[in-house]
Amino acid sequence: MATDPELSRLRDSIDNIDAALIHLLAERFKCTKAVGQLKAQKGMPPADLEREAAQIGRLRKLAHEAKLDPDFAEKFLAFIVKEVIRHHEAIRRDAR
Amino acid sequence: MATDPELSRLRDSIDNIDAALIHLLAERFKCTKAVGQLKAQKGMPPADLEREAAQIGRLRKLAHEAKLDPDFAEKFLAFIVKEVIRHHEAIRRDAR
Repeated sequence: MATDPELSRLRDSIDNIDAALIHLLAERFKCTKAVGQLKAQKGMPPADLEREAAQIGRLRKLAHEAKLDPDFAEKFLAFIVKEVIRHHEAIRRDAR
Repeated sequence: MATDPELSRLRDSIDNIDAALIHLLAERFKCTKAVGQLKAQKGMPPADLEREAAQIGRLRKLAHEAKLDPDFAEKFLAFIVKEVIRHHEAIRRDAR
């Protein structure tokens, strides 16, 4: 199976995209960790429902334009935010 | 809260990264849909455990190098693959 040239070509593209995704996610968590530290320092509340609603709406729109299922984009954001919350809880624990 | 300049700067970066992530995911699903169609055409089995193990190992290594939690990278791949399987099932349904 691995020797099908078309399959190999597609898998190489998937591997390149995955490497880009991993590096972008690393950069995104750098930003959200900085947000967590800033909020902890300045006593800002961890959650911001207005911001979250705006993010969901924006990502659904971008997904639609990119021909990606908007429901998947919303699930993807929720998946990432779950990890962000885990990081922010760790920041608050370390701050105590 | 939204008027804190440092918070705004970080949120702008998060929004830029999210737009890039959405577009890369759209491109990745184009590739995996093509893989699904190719496998259906050529009668190749949907799952390839050797390929999956190689992908996990590679992404964990890339994550480590990018200072991203390798466990998160593995969970991320599993999350994406779940959606890919959903697409491939739809392709098989449509082919019948």
